Amino acid sequence: MSHKVIFDTDPGVDDAMALYFALAHPEIDVVGITTTFGNVTVQQATTNAIYLSRITGREIPVAGGGAMPLMKAAGTPPGFIHGDDGLGNLPQRVNVAGTAEALSAAEYIVDMARKHPGEITIVAVGPFVNLGLALKLEPELPKLIKQVILMAGTVNEPGNVSPVAEANVWNDPHAADLVFTAGWNLVMVGLDVTHRVVMPFTYFAQLAEQHQQHLAMTTLRHAANFYCDFYLRERPDLGHACFGHDILAFVYLVAPELFATQDGRIRVQLEGMGNGQTMMDKHGGLHYAQAGWEKHRPETRVCLQVDADKCLSLIKQTLESDWLRDPLVL
Amino acid sequence: MSHKVIFDTDPGVDDAMALYFALAHPEIDVVGITTTFGNVTVQQATTNAIYLSRITGREIPVAGGGAMPLMKAAGTPPGFIHGDDGLGNLPQRVNVAGTAEALSAAEYIVDMARKHPGEITIVAVGPFVNLGLALKLEPELPKLIKQVILMAGTVNEPGNVSPVAEANVWNDPHAADLVFTAGWNLVMVGLDVTHRVVMPFTYFAQLAEQHQQHLAMTTLRHAANFYCDFYLRERPDLGHACFGHDILAFVYLVAPELFATQDGRIRVQLEGMGNGQTMMDKHGGLHYAQAGWEKHRPETRVCLQVDADKCLSLIKQTLESDWLRDPLVL
Repeated sequence: MSHKVIFDTDPGVDDAMALYFALAHPEIDVVGITTTFGNVTVQQATTNAIYLSRITGREIPVAGGGAMPLMKAAGTPPGFIHGDDGLGNLPQRVNVAGTAEALSAAEYIVDMARKHPGEITIVAVGPFVNLGLALKLEPELPKLIKQVILMAGTVNEPGNVSPVAEANVWNDPHAADLVFTAGWNLVMVGLDVTHRVVMPFTYFAQLAEQHQQHLAMTTLRHAANFYCDFYLRERPDLGHACFGHDILAFVYLVAPELFATQDGRIRVQLEGMGNGQTMMDKHGGLHYAQAGWEKHRPETRVCLQVDADKCLSLIKQTLESDWLRDPLVL
Repeated sequence: MSHKVIFDTDPGVDDAMALYFALAHPEIDVVGITTTFGNVTVQQATTNAIYLSRITGREIPVAGGGAMPLMKAAGTPPGFIHGDDGLGNLPQRVNVAGTAEALSAAEYIVDMARKHPGEITIVAVGPFVNLGLALKLEPELPKLIKQVILMAGTVNEPGNVSPVAEANVWNDPHAADLVFTAGWNLVMVGLDVTHRVVMPFTYFAQLAEQHQQHLAMTTLRHAANFYCDFYLRERPDLGHACFGHDILAFVYLVAPELFATQDGRIRVQLEGMGNGQTMMDKHGGLHYAQAGWEKHRPETRVCLQVDADKCLSLIKQTLESDWLRDPLVL
């Protein structure tokens, strides 16, 4: 069987890895890409989404989305992590065809959900402004969507933008809380598992060789090199390597058995020093003095552990397969 | 050696247990008690502190303190946990002498700290309004106080007033954040360890027998019975029993070797659904995009694990010793 996926993304280096995993995997059909601010501006994210897909030889609809958070003040993209262009500051780009859809990301999601009720899976790996807006455009959206998988948040693992918050949620806490309380079939793939899966740079170098220096793979290698340089400064204990982050959302889609999960209510801290934290009610059975935790609220399936070795094998096997076509250059 | 202690408390059933442990232990010298709202109103807390100490035969100065949080709206005392009178709704009380000090709790703390610089340990087991106010009255207080031990907060263990917050901190988050960032020799004894130490009601019944139905012990038995009834409803998995909570702050004072600790910055979430959470920076070495986590801020010694069996033995041995005098009744 094949999963019809809309990929909501802010590429971003690990977004590029995730996109290529999705395109390479035989059971994943990326029917559309929606973009958001986050790792880069939304304009850059759209440019990158078109570029990254075209150089693999694919034409995939790309709908540009939210340029800023729903409520929080806009921040500055972290150029020191992903490069100012989101792909490790590529020295040059070939010319590719392709423009963004006429519909905005949120409209595109709603349109596709109505056209294919119960068929679409959304894999979202950036700030969740597009999903928040789509829920406002179509309150019945949760019933039209098959499954939503988020690279988002953290429960037990320390955060990466504060001791308690993960970047995607922190970038738009209000949108994230809408998503976590909307009542759809929802899975959270957060730092609890993405920090367990470490990918060395050498792997991306080998991949480019294996694919005879295909443009998509040399582009990914360049981006991964920049990204691993960041981690070498921030987390020297990892070596020249990076976390799997976004790619794990797609791994969950095709191999959920590699994850240990717990179902529970997630709420997002909207204010203060802890803003962007995904707070999980692990007990569920208790009565709390604090409002906001009432039991009628929907639960999220939260990934708490992962078989990292099997994840890495699946990623390797998928990306090494014969999936690349000639780049669609002008 | 003997620890000169000011006990800041909102008795409260587990406060009563803690007070009696302190009075029974040969190395603890309770030089004064300061009271706060929390488990009961501050007026009731003062009445109870005087009552509980007088019926053991002790005259200890009691200074009444904060009636409400520094900034947060005042709540309602949880009569269903501690009884409306804080001691499980005692059917009657004997008449005891004793009135509160002329100084308020915060003034009393500052006065004692100035008179005995470097000698006073504060063990605080209620909301931290008195410590917050004392820090404002005397900014040099952290240099005058030997050690502060808080029954407060939680790091890995779920909260008891929300999935992330512990009641003492949640009752006055702003005061707690002042305390956690003041820069004194600070220890946090929170739910991570207090939820590991379960005390069955039968133990308090035995204690009353052992002490020939001494009024202090029959009073504690009555209070413990009510308190364990609450836990039987809320946490039936424990049986008719309760958590050690406040008493563990004194156990840490005399037996810190029973605890595994980690030092790290603690900040308190002041707003929103997560308010009252003690957020710990477990890594310490990372640069965070979120403000408020700068490295110059002082650290807290956080209790993360405890040897529960040895704790219970120490508590038992201490409370069973020959420490009770004739009640100071009128």
